[in-house]
Amino acid sequence: MNCKAGEEQYCLEGNVGTYGGMLDGKPTDGGYSEKIVVDENYVCGIPEGVELDVAAPLLCAGITLYSPLKHWGAGPGKKVAIVGLGGLGHMGVKIAAALGAEVTVLSQSLSKKDDGEKFGAQHYYATSDDATFEQLAGSFDLVVNTVSAALPMDRYLSLLGLNGTMVNVGAPAEPLEVPAFSLIPMRRSWAGSMIGGIAETQEMLEFCAEHGLGAEIETISADQIDEAYDRVVGSDVRYRFVIDVATMA
Amino acid sequence: MNCKAGEEQYCLEGNVGTYGGMLDGKPTDGGYSEKIVVDENYVCGIPEGVELDVAAPLLCAGITLYSPLKHWGAGPGKKVAIVGLGGLGHMGVKIAAALGAEVTVLSQSLSKKDDGEKFGAQHYYATSDDATFEQLAGSFDLVVNTVSAALPMDRYLSLLGLNGTMVNVGAPAEPLEVPAFSLIPMRRSWAGSMIGGIAETQEMLEFCAEHGLGAEIETISADQIDEAYDRVVGSDVRYRFVIDVATMA
Repeated sequence: MNCKAGEEQYCLEGNVGTYGGMLDGKPTDGGYSEKIVVDENYVCGIPEGVELDVAAPLLCAGITLYSPLKHWGAGPGKKVAIVGLGGLGHMGVKIAAALGAEVTVLSQSLSKKDDGEKFGAQHYYATSDDATFEQLAGSFDLVVNTVSAALPMDRYLSLLGLNGTMVNVGAPAEPLEVPAFSLIPMRRSWAGSMIGGIAETQEMLEFCAEHGLGAEIETISADQIDEAYDRVVGSDVRYRFVIDVATMA
Repeated sequence: MNCKAGEEQYCLEGNVGTYGGMLDGKPTDGGYSEKIVVDENYVCGIPEGVELDVAAPLLCAGITLYSPLKHWGAGPGKKVAIVGLGGLGHMGVKIAAALGAEVTVLSQSLSKKDDGEKFGAQHYYATSDDATFEQLAGSFDLVVNTVSAALPMDRYLSLLGLNGTMVNVGAPAEPLEVPAFSLIPMRRSWAGSMIGGIAETQEMLEFCAEHGLGAEIETISADQIDEAYDRVVGSDVRYRFVIDVATMA
């Protein structure tokens, strides 16, 4: 039912990932392959002018941010905060800015402030500074949280204005502690969003091509994977590694 | 700002309750008075055909349920669940049904099933029965939670379908434990809502008059207050006590 509405990611029977999923009882191994057989309904076209390596993270980070930003109406006159400036967050800033929203980055420190502004953020605050939460209380229409750690939800929800929504695309394994009174007095919502459907992914690719957007990447060869993995674990990547599968042979 | 938009309940400077609030540095003592002086902008008219005692709980329970039901689009083709059939919940069932939604009551037991159906519910389930959550998984567009106890949020959120929203009008004092993964896979939202503005309260009163809706009440005299209080604490009221202030002299 959801699939027929173009929302395959919310399939009631569970969606099948290209890699690490199960299809007809067999594991799916695509994504790190030179060749892969797929159903034509699950193929996207990369528009002219978008390089393949720059496009690769759009198919995960790009659509993961594009979908909630569109769904919750990011655009002119809307104040949007992106929590975390990593692989997901940096695409959120670029897309929200291209949609015309007024974008604020909420990051642990100000260490990536120059990057954030280059990507299109008008404001940049450190969440390690308590004054940030006082200063920005009730400010935002939409907060997209890309952080998988357990944040103090009451503080982040207090940043929303009337009818504001905080959307998690990052998900800590443990339940979060959320006071109902963080939601009730300003009719706030806390929501979740998961990647996007095939049609919306194609729309996102066209949008990125039109606005000259791509992921910030370091392209590596197969023999650099171990080193890159350690750097990912150490948060030392701006902002995504892309493996050139031509080097995998 | 919110006040000017007719959302006085979300006033950024805090709203002032008729009773137990603070106005110009003085406590407000209205609500249990024979006479009270109010600003004309904060008066509602009780429509012809709605008795005063039946109308009284509409100004709290009625608007508290009407506002989220309207805001989240309860109406024809929408599946709405009301959690808890008390003073708030029974008005939720009546209003949601009058709005044209398909209404389900989720109550601890089936003891008030006849009442729920009389108020307009098409379905009635006991939440003490684990099968209820399996059977209704992914069913609802909107769940309005009137219960102030800490419910197992993951189970209640699992009742929402794609883009579904659970709205708390009841609020436990303690934070609730909510897994982000209860929201993400179906783009669900958890929200809060607080009474309603003056304009919407008047709209609700007209709606109730038009549909012949009122609160189920027991009208008592002032000398029955102690006894009524004990019965409220013991959940022995169907569904609101109303004090006749003429007996207070």
